[in-house]
Amino acid sequence: MEDTSFSAGCAWIKDKYVPIDDAAIPITDTGFTRSDVTYDVVAVWEGKFFRLEEHLTRFEKSWKALGMNPPLSKNRMRHVLHKCVEKSGLTNAYVEMMVTRGSPAAGDRDPRNFKNQFYAFAIPYVWIAEEHEQLAGLKLVIAKSAQRISPHSVDPTVKNFHWGDLTKGLFEALALDAKTAVLLDADNNVTEGPGFNLFAFAKGRLITPATGVLLGITRQTILELADEQGVDCETGILSAKQLLGADEIFLTSTAGGVMPVSSLDGRLIGDGVPGPVTMMLRELYWQAHTRPEWTEDVAYPDESKNVSSLAR
Amino acid sequence: MEDTSFSAGCAWIKDKYVPIDDAAIPITDTGFTRSDVTYDVVAVWEGKFFRLEEHLTRFEKSWKALGMNPPLSKNRMRHVLHKCVEKSGLTNAYVEMMVTRGSPAAGDRDPRNFKNQFYAFAIPYVWIAEEHEQLAGLKLVIAKSAQRISPHSVDPTVKNFHWGDLTKGLFEALALDAKTAVLLDADNNVTEGPGFNLFAFAKGRLITPATGVLLGITRQTILELADEQGVDCETGILSAKQLLGADEIFLTSTAGGVMPVSSLDGRLIGDGVPGPVTMMLRELYWQAHTRPEWTEDVAYPDESKNVSSLAR
Repeated sequence: MEDTSFSAGCAWIKDKYVPIDDAAIPITDTGFTRSDVTYDVVAVWEGKFFRLEEHLTRFEKSWKALGMNPPLSKNRMRHVLHKCVEKSGLTNAYVEMMVTRGSPAAGDRDPRNFKNQFYAFAIPYVWIAEEHEQLAGLKLVIAKSAQRISPHSVDPTVKNFHWGDLTKGLFEALALDAKTAVLLDADNNVTEGPGFNLFAFAKGRLITPATGVLLGITRQTILELADEQGVDCETGILSAKQLLGADEIFLTSTAGGVMPVSSLDGRLIGDGVPGPVTMMLRELYWQAHTRPEWTEDVAYPDESKNVSSLAR
Repeated sequence: MEDTSFSAGCAWIKDKYVPIDDAAIPITDTGFTRSDVTYDVVAVWEGKFFRLEEHLTRFEKSWKALGMNPPLSKNRMRHVLHKCVEKSGLTNAYVEMMVTRGSPAAGDRDPRNFKNQFYAFAIPYVWIAEEHEQLAGLKLVIAKSAQRISPHSVDPTVKNFHWGDLTKGLFEALALDAKTAVLLDADNNVTEGPGFNLFAFAKGRLITPATGVLLGITRQTILELADEQGVDCETGILSAKQLLGADEIFLTSTAGGVMPVSSLDGRLIGDGVPGPVTMMLRELYWQAHTRPEWTEDVAYPDESKNVSSLAR
């Protein structure tokens, strides 16, 4: 029988599985009150986790970089993530895991003493841009209102919730009737946007920023797929000027995959429709979601599948 | 009769007063998952709120800067803050209020649609450094591991939880057996530290950074008290070099007041004991907590006072 109480999503909080709408964290957890937290997001697509091992490896690197010591082993986390998806029954899911510094004991300001926490949840797959928006191509702007937080302040390779700059960029884009924004660094080079990496295709070559960005798993997947196809491809510096002259632009994220961009700051990119390199890589990206070496099956209990998420 | 269930603190969450240990926010609130939140902290000292009006005014400015629309009016918030303290019975309290962007409806990535939330809590007064540490003077370091997040990325005058850089500095200080750290900006000028502003007294003059910092209410109070005493005093640029040559240094915060610094990067400041200007201002600061124009009484129910906090 289907457990409907988890159909909107299932979370794991303080050693218990709870429906997502009941999932809450202590208001005193410094994961909230100091954003002292790292996280990761992995997708389940058609009943299979995609590159879960790579996500867990990155996640482990992140909590270690913050000097955190989560109460669960990486293997036990993997088990919890599977269980969250199984219980939800979701075949297409957005699965998030966090390690926080935890709550201080009364009056204690020394974060070395806090008991670190692990939280996780599975909810229906999230699209930064939905299928029909992707096929039309997204309107992107270069944020003028905020510069990306410098790696000298917060390491972007340790996935974090310091999104103030990204959110400001997103609001700027929405006010301009665009879909989202990409942020520049202090040297006017392209970095990333709210939840995505960016690729440009120019002069026959694919380029994505090498530094000052999250090393996204979708980004990595595209680099590998492009390489398999013999597409010339580099990670390096991408200036705002280069971006404005690109033939194709696309965004990559676990929450949406490969998302074509059709205009930048109101100017058409290429012909103003998703370009051929973008569309090829997008197709290959979704095909890769059945590769045995990149997937692992969710063991849903009988008849519990919850195909509520939008099909692609 | 004393309500012991609130004696460790009282929170206001989703229209209810709850004991602090039960106070939890939805794991999906983007105040957590995007750090899309602003907050403020006001002290209650010996049964009186200190400069609550100034804190609420700054808080209102902050949520407006983020385009948020909290579900409570400022006056209703004031009422809730009073009630949290009354219920806790705490005579010396640390009272925090937050407005968050709130949780997305399923699948919605547009933050303009989220229902903004207001949360608050009162807990026993928090000391960044306790009385005996203050009287000895604190060991401070200039953080080498992290630069303060630039105002071009996140506006520090909108009080926020983007503490990754500050926390990194704090860990660096603790590893060096120092109390805390102050961060520099990209130009090697002094900004602020985890939870405090900084003042230096050099060449007969008090100086505190004018920009790139939170405009702290304790900072403002010190500027006003110094002015009343005819202490020459400015807000401006304070270089790391100037700081290293200061005669006195102190930190200011709602969580601890005026905190003398006795050494910087292992070198003694002045005679290595709290200096006279620092100690005078510290004394005046605590005296000011009875000024009628800066205080308002908490209306504790009979016999409910909870004098659990440390006396100064």
